Amino acid sequence: MLEDWLAPKAAALESRGLTRRLRPRASGEVVVDLASNDYLGLARDPRVVEAAVEAVREWGASATASRLVTGTTALHAELESELAAYVGQETGLAFSSGYLANLGVITALGGPGTLLVSDDHVHASMVDACRLSRSRVEVTPHNDVEAVAKALAERNEPRAVVLVESVYSVLGDAAPLTELAALAVEHDAVLLVDEAHGLGVTGNGRGSVAAAGLAGAGHVIVTMTLSKALASQGGVVLGPSVLRDHLINRARAFIFDTGLTPAACGAALAALRILSEEPSRPEAIHGTAARLAAACGVTASAGPVVSVPMPGPREAVRAADLCLANGVRVGSFRPPSVPDGISRLRLTAHAGLSTTDLDRACDVITTAIREAS
Amino acid sequence: MLEDWLAPKAAALESRGLTRRLRPRASGEVVVDLASNDYLGLARDPRVVEAAVEAVREWGASATASRLVTGTTALHAELESELAAYVGQETGLAFSSGYLANLGVITALGGPGTLLVSDDHVHASMVDACRLSRSRVEVTPHNDVEAVAKALAERNEPRAVVLVESVYSVLGDAAPLTELAALAVEHDAVLLVDEAHGLGVTGNGRGSVAAAGLAGAGHVIVTMTLSKALASQGGVVLGPSVLRDHLINRARAFIFDTGLTPAACGAALAALRILSEEPSRPEAIHGTAARLAAACGVTASAGPVVSVPMPGPREAVRAADLCLANGVRVGSFRPPSVPDGISRLRLTAHAGLSTTDLDRACDVITTAIREAS
Ligand SMILES: Cc1ncc(COP(=O)(O)O)c(C=O)c1O
Ligand SMILES: Cc1ncc(COP(=O)(O)O)c(C=O)c1O
Repeated sequence: MLEDWLAPKAAALESRGLTRRLRPRASGEVVVDLASNDYLGLARDPRVVEAAVEAVREWGASATASRLVTGTTALHAELESELAAYVGQETGLAFSSGYLANLGVITALGGPGTLLVSDDHVHASMVDACRLSRSRVEVTPHNDVEAVAKALAERNEPRAVVLVESVYSVLGDAAPLTELAALAVEHDAVLLVDEAHGLGVTGNGRGSVAAAGLAGAGHVIVTMTLSKALASQGGVVLGPSVLRDHLINRARAFIFDTGLTPAACGAALAALRILSEEPSRPEAIHGTAARLAAACGVTASAGPVVSVPMPGPREAVRAADLCLANGVRVGSFRPPSVPDGISRLRLTAHAGLSTTDLDRACDVITTAIREAS
Repeated sequence: MLEDWLAPKAAALESRGLTRRLRPRASGEVVVDLASNDYLGLARDPRVVEAAVEAVREWGASATASRLVTGTTALHAELESELAAYVGQETGLAFSSGYLANLGVITALGGPGTLLVSDDHVHASMVDACRLSRSRVEVTPHNDVEAVAKALAERNEPRAVVLVESVYSVLGDAAPLTELAALAVEHDAVLLVDEAHGLGVTGNGRGSVAAAGLAGAGHVIVTMTLSKALASQGGVVLGPSVLRDHLINRARAFIFDTGLTPAACGAALAALRILSEEPSRPEAIHGTAARLAAACGVTASAGPVVSVPMPGPREAVRAADLCLANGVRVGSFRPPSVPDGISRLRLTAHAGLSTTDLDRACDVITTAIREAS
């Protein structure tokens, strides 16, 4: 049954050059990493690693149950309140992934009386959340403030939530948060900002919502992942305590999921403390991103992601392969993972890259793009 | 906006005795644990803890990216193939949670040409997956084989997937896997079995699908969590390699999610090895479950979960509070977390409980039930 069903689909993908394959990394591997989301270069920082070690030794390898049953440790609570304080929010609630944080909060606020207005470049987890929410969903063109205003003004629903990312994950551009927040006030709506690529990067590390002076505003809520700048795994929803209480009681992806491991909580907390004590780290990301963008001839991005359009999916993969063969790892994005259908190289800027490595990486990448195109 | 929206909902819940609150555990806490899903008692086993420590030191605190970008380590591959071999499946694919594993596989197989036939007691993650799938969904009464046969026979869709749990998470009873697998063959359908509460428990640890001689059958696929018997976090989909390839290319909850942390992979792998080297461990769970069921006057369950109906939600919470005050932690389930609307105590049996602790726990629980009812 499965064979007859799935094998023809696999053949069809293959014939279009779109098959994806996993390539396990070896542990001793030496490459310049411009592909991961470890923006602050903290995943192997000894302080982060040893914090994970300490957490697993103190609390065990698992949360052992859902958060409401017995999966909440004092470490979860500590992480939630320190992160909330750092980004200027009243409370935080940790989920086992950023994906489930978005599903959880959006479905808990969605439903028949709530319009969801979603930018058409938002992350897959928000798209899935919209589908799951039983809300009417209006998808607006990317960064089109007028379209959002229209959707909010013309709605019949008493409530509305606008969904955006502060820094978009594929294109690397920023959302117009000030304008969108003003619209939310004007139309009695909530603005939900996914800061997956903002935390640790924009606003001196505190994210774009804080930078825009919107942290703690009663109509702005935030989701973040712990899996990028904070070098761990997990996701957090941040906002007023009335929101946190609502999620604890209504977010299915919170209630029915095992809590985040203590090790992941400990690592994220250590990374957060480094970020807050070493505020110059985020700056290095912007310098590197600008250098990469200039080398590839694309406009500088708002955050860590530099997006380089390629002629097609095969060219994108070939260029990424050439880079790796020359010791530089970059990402390649192909349909259907790109909102506009354009295949691209995706370069991520990290703090802590040496100038030598960066220079060499720029050479390798530009050569690979030329050879593959 | 949020305050006006959510505060009245909170008040309504409170007035019905249904408000849920998080209670962080302290790390030095000494209680008899009959609430967590750490069925084999491995979450604090030094071998599991030190495997997590080794993994984080070797690989860092994070997978640092999605599995397809650079988030697949050799450790992920090792875990996947050892777990598949242990439970008798060709391949496995790890997700960051059991929740996302279910969402991923069901949405990747669902869609307009696929009927989903779902038992009405399946876990929230499978219910959400059905909603998200764009499939027509037939919900059948709990363990009703006739109803499943009828749904399969009368369908117009070329494909169908039947969704069950091998051991149900709230009631603790088992699915009739042999009959359901025969139906799947007869009607050219796929049977998907969630073994969250079977792995490490039934079939001498290998789960109920293996015990029924169905492991590796081309029309049976399995999901498991790493967060219960394997004392970690994460989820795995197991089946033929054509399924794994399909998921890598189509499962959004895999493609767009950061990989499971190395520490979680390492811990799960160590727990799996202990399970496979010490095959007597699962037996202890069944003995404890039978003892708990007898003490509470309910019928013995198929797995680790003993479910004790209570008069109402307040009584369930009161009984659980009394237990905790006397050093025994049990779970309490209230609507909407119970498929049949009946509030209950949920006791989970663990390997490694001493007879003294178990005797005392039985006393404490029966007294608490009497006093709270
Ligand atoms: C914008 C955005 N939101 C959410 C997520 C999901 O976060 P996680 O990988 O922690 O589940 C990601 C990336 O994976 C992302 O880029
Ligand atoms: C039957 C079942 N499936 C899936 C899950 C989800 O697994 P996880 O907690 O690892 O996300 C759970 C429990 O949490 C469960 O009980």
